Amino acid sequence: MTEISFEDIRGAQARIGGRIHRTPVLTSARLDELAGARLFFKCENFQKTGSFKARGAANAVFSLADAEAARGVATHSSGNHGAALAWAARQRGVPAFVAMPRTASQFKLASVERLGGRVVLCEPTHRAREEAAERIVRETGAAFIHPFNDARVIAGQGTAALELLTEVPDLDAVVCPVGGGGLLAGTAIAARALRPAIRVFAGEPEGAADASRSFSSGVRQAVEHPSSIADGLLAFVGDVTFPIIRRHADGIATVSDAAIAGAMRQIWEIMKIVVEPSGAVAFAALAAGRLEVAGLRVGVILSGGNVELGRTAGAP
Amino acid sequence: MTEISFEDIRGAQARIGGRIHRTPVLTSARLDELAGARLFFKCENFQKTGSFKARGAANAVFSLADAEAARGVATHSSGNHGAALAWAARQRGVPAFVAMPRTASQFKLASVERLGGRVVLCEPTHRAREEAAERIVRETGAAFIHPFNDARVIAGQGTAALELLTEVPDLDAVVCPVGGGGLLAGTAIAARALRPAIRVFAGEPEGAADASRSFSSGVRQAVEHPSSIADGLLAFVGDVTFPIIRRHADGIATVSDAAIAGAMRQIWEIMKIVVEPSGAVAFAALAAGRLEVAGLRVGVILSGGNVELGRTAGAP
Repeated sequence: MTEISFEDIRGAQARIGGRIHRTPVLTSARLDELAGARLFFKCENFQKTGSFKARGAANAVFSLADAEAARGVATHSSGNHGAALAWAARQRGVPAFVAMPRTASQFKLASVERLGGRVVLCEPTHRAREEAAERIVRETGAAFIHPFNDARVIAGQGTAALELLTEVPDLDAVVCPVGGGGLLAGTAIAARALRPAIRVFAGEPEGAADASRSFSSGVRQAVEHPSSIADGLLAFVGDVTFPIIRRHADGIATVSDAAIAGAMRQIWEIMKIVVEPSGAVAFAALAAGRLEVAGLRVGVILSGGNVELGRTAGAP
Repeated sequence: MTEISFEDIRGAQARIGGRIHRTPVLTSARLDELAGARLFFKCENFQKTGSFKARGAANAVFSLADAEAARGVATHSSGNHGAALAWAARQRGVPAFVAMPRTASQFKLASVERLGGRVVLCEPTHRAREEAAERIVRETGAAFIHPFNDARVIAGQGTAALELLTEVPDLDAVVCPVGGGGLLAGTAIAARALRPAIRVFAGEPEGAADASRSFSSGVRQAVEHPSSIADGLLAFVGDVTFPIIRRHADGIATVSDAAIAGAMRQIWEIMKIVVEPSGAVAFAALAAGRLEVAGLRVGVILSGGNVELGRTAGAP
């Protein structure tokens, strides 16, 4: 088991603190009513590149030795990690190669390229993406930065909870979404270290409930064809992240796509902030009453806000 | 001409400062690029009731003598002013009667009622709304609070610019939307008083360009059938607000509905905050290059965020 300590998260905070946003913590009396708890929303939708992924990517990129960094970094990601890695690499002045499926939306390709990332298109299978990334690494000598199964990335993601608990120390629980598990693992390590009695929960889409099933059984179990509007959470929980989650988390609740869409709508309409479906999953689990937090003070990580709006969104 | 001074705005700030949100001022390097200027967004979408209207309504309601207030307040509004007045009246513990057209959306009716407002439905014509409000006033003795043609309301709306210029004193220009003109009049008085050389601009929908035409000609001219997705800006500029605007503002730019929708989308996607179409009009005028602000430091009032989302908004 890869050991990641709270000191690694403190180290990440020192390394990246001047480069990322210290995102605000917002509250809403109306959302508190809907959840039956007092909620403190950590707004990673306002983070650099629009998601918490900037934290892990920056920590990984700035952990590299100069000679190593000079050859660039590489990953495979159709979403927020690709954009985050492109951004972090540009901050360091080195190239970022991002293997993306040729079916990725123009919106996502444009995000990575706008941030200076070099997109390498591949077939839309997990295997093809891994192979494309391996080929890039072989040919360029770039350092591979996995989206979640990487100690540097996990430590970086943990800085969101570190900031949250520094600003609101007396939380009873903290809730975040889980996909590959990088955010949940980092959150769990940070929260347990700062406040040992805190409860650490996650929300997961019903259509991609591998982490929930694995957590219940104690053995990593993949879901065959994961599917959800929360497209940032389709990854299979990692073999680095899972043991950490298993040890430090208290529960994972699953929510339907309808509940996720409803939660997203409530956050947009009531808080007036844009979150992507994945970013609404933690609140969806709370609003659905799937977590035992009645009357408690709960930190909620709104993980990201990268959503492509329909041309008519918001038009009457 | 109704005289409204900067001291009235300072008085309003003292009266309502503890009741409203001091909304944040946000910046975005990407939106700066699109506008070719350095922008400072005053986020009234985060204001109580979701728009700047809470300022004017609160100032009017809390200006009333106790005996007068006890009989309640009344208005006609299908939008943000109705919700704002209901909220302000509840803060004072008095009833608010809101004449609304029976064609108003369930969303808008529910907003007013959730805030404790008593909705009185009427036919969807301007005349019917005025008559309904007059009847309420006759029957209940409630104090009528016009949405914009009221010195107390104008002074309240001016507190947004007062806060903005207190936080960012060295602005070269300030831009807001114009409908009936309450926000623009209040903004102009506050901005001119605090920084005499500042330029005061407004954006207005092409389909409801009465203020722009009136400003150019010097004579109030209505538009026959105003129409725009910016449904908060359809009102005819008032006979109280217009002389103030004429004296203190530097220009009004019109923008198409397509430009408004595009600006709204950019604000949502890039800043990750929800603004309604009316709230995006000032930025739309800047992004369209309709105002001479190249390279300047410009305050932009994002006036509100009350938008009913389509059920599929944001779904992939």
